[in-house]
Amino acid sequence: MTSTPGLADRIVAGDTRAVARAISLIEDEDPAGVELLRALFGRTGRAYLIGVTGPPGAGKSTLVDRLTTELRRPASTIETGAASAAPGVGIIAVDPTSPFTGGAVLGDRLRMQSHAADDGVFIRSMATRGHLGGLARATGDAALVLDAAGKQVVIIETVGVGQDEVEIVRTADISIVTLVPGAGDDVQALKAGIMEIADVFVVNKSDREGADRLVSAIESNLSLHEYGPGQWRPPIVKTVATTGAGVPELVDTIRRFREHSEPAQSARRRVRSETRVRELVAAKLVAHLEQRVLGPGEWTAVVERVTSREIDPYTAADDLVRRAVAGSPRL
Amino acid sequence: MTSTPGLADRIVAGDTRAVARAISLIEDEDPAGVELLRALFGRTGRAYLIGVTGPPGAGKSTLVDRLTTELRRPASTIETGAASAAPGVGIIAVDPTSPFTGGAVLGDRLRMQSHAADDGVFIRSMATRGHLGGLARATGDAALVLDAAGKQVVIIETVGVGQDEVEIVRTADISIVTLVPGAGDDVQALKAGIMEIADVFVVNKSDREGADRLVSAIESNLSLHEYGPGQWRPPIVKTVATTGAGVPELVDTIRRFREHSEPAQSARRRVRSETRVRELVAAKLVAHLEQRVLGPGEWTAVVERVTSREIDPYTAADDLVRRAVAGSPRL
Repeated sequence: MTSTPGLADRIVAGDTRAVARAISLIEDEDPAGVELLRALFGRTGRAYLIGVTGPPGAGKSTLVDRLTTELRRPASTIETGAASAAPGVGIIAVDPTSPFTGGAVLGDRLRMQSHAADDGVFIRSMATRGHLGGLARATGDAALVLDAAGKQVVIIETVGVGQDEVEIVRTADISIVTLVPGAGDDVQALKAGIMEIADVFVVNKSDREGADRLVSAIESNLSLHEYGPGQWRPPIVKTVATTGAGVPELVDTIRRFREHSEPAQSARRRVRSETRVRELVAAKLVAHLEQRVLGPGEWTAVVERVTSREIDPYTAADDLVRRAVAGSPRL
Repeated sequence: MTSTPGLADRIVAGDTRAVARAISLIEDEDPAGVELLRALFGRTGRAYLIGVTGPPGAGKSTLVDRLTTELRRPASTIETGAASAAPGVGIIAVDPTSPFTGGAVLGDRLRMQSHAADDGVFIRSMATRGHLGGLARATGDAALVLDAAGKQVVIIETVGVGQDEVEIVRTADISIVTLVPGAGDDVQALKAGIMEIADVFVVNKSDREGADRLVSAIESNLSLHEYGPGQWRPPIVKTVATTGAGVPELVDTIRRFREHSEPAQSARRRVRSETRVRELVAAKLVAHLEQRVLGPGEWTAVVERVTSREIDPYTAADDLVRRAVAGSPRL
């Protein structure tokens, strides 16, 4: 096994195998992953994070593949300054696959093929872990690794419209919500908490019947909201990801948003930092309480008393917190 | 405004308006909601929690409505002991609706109509709140209120297959995963982390083309897993929720699962208690650190240093935790 400093150097040099190894460490919650991130963090902050979400079946994977191909064309750029060379692209497909079906690995292999010859593209699926917030944290950490490895663009693709996905996508620099005509109920799709996180809407499979109806439905939802002068009104881009139609327009829209939001970007990144610090602190404080403050078996005993309705969880939590902060200088 | 003790009594008496008021307090994170739950907790633990999830467009709302109607028929029962009167049913529709579209309220009104004449049914949508884990906690608390109000069955319906939905449904006594033929890609639906949480699969809209193919796909996924003797193998129930076909079979399947899992149910409830205590403790400990241990502006200053890459979030979290536990007797 490579030592952390060696691995960090290889990642910064853009070594693909080192990047893959690092993301595995993060996924496995190996302490070496944390050491690595400490070493890499100062080298991050340059990548542009694109979040792509939407309901299953919206064609997000194909769209992300096409978007990547388009970004890799020398003439194409989302850089806001002078035109530069084609950016390196990292893709994290947040894939709530169970170990049971093994879909993530298969999916990776299939998807790798379309960019197999391109050193500038790195694709990785990340699967759900059981505990709350674990996926958002792991995804963010994987994005940091790709950032440190010099990828100028990191695309985070999530399936679904649950709170966790919303959380992941919201912390990206731009949130793209992908919808598709005729997927059950248009209103359902729009209801699903995604109106407010979208910076850009993509109506994919826009050659299908119902595409214009879906565009109108999004439009009428947007029209409920007042956009002041200088405020970004989420545009709707029609694509057919399988043919690539509309994808250059999407790249152009991303570039325009990036330009528009440059002043607000630091605020968005501050929220991302705060979420991360808060999660880490919460996990560490609970672990401290469980392992250092309480005696062996005490945590379990409290849970047991709550399960049997002897005490309520709020009182239990208050008692535990009181013990954790006993001796705290400011209480 | 009603005082908490008065409200608690009215809830235990089954007063619908009091239940609605209590859930609003929970949704608004009003401290009075916490006081109420403390008062009610000892009266809970009797309701059977049914979690229903699946991708958007799977017809979950219609299914839940039909299931409710069926449960309310005097001849129908999921009680495992002697047959009893039709159980009171509470429905919590976890609806990640943005305040922007206002869909939750509309949805409630539309859905209320089919059970408007039935005092034994209470329906309530709950919307996503911004922060991590907030929805799972609020949903669990709302279920407690319905439990205390004497509903023998509480159905929690979620849209989507994100981690948060999985978390919500997993803590129910039974998890029903609803799929639908031809919704994009069958494999996609099965990939979405739901194989391992399902106690029962429902193939809804089973009169549509592709229903048998979907059943086979689920079957072949299940066959990858070995079920020992006495182990529950998730059955697949075909329904057409719009006509009610298959819904009596679903009720029967729920009853069979309930019987089968009675010995394991306390373990499941222990996990639910632990998750709840852990979340509460984490939130309280972070609040203590932020408000009592740190001086004004200190938290923001740390976040700022992380945002500017001056320190990494892991080091920042370690420093903060060190300060929080300074003086802690066991360190």
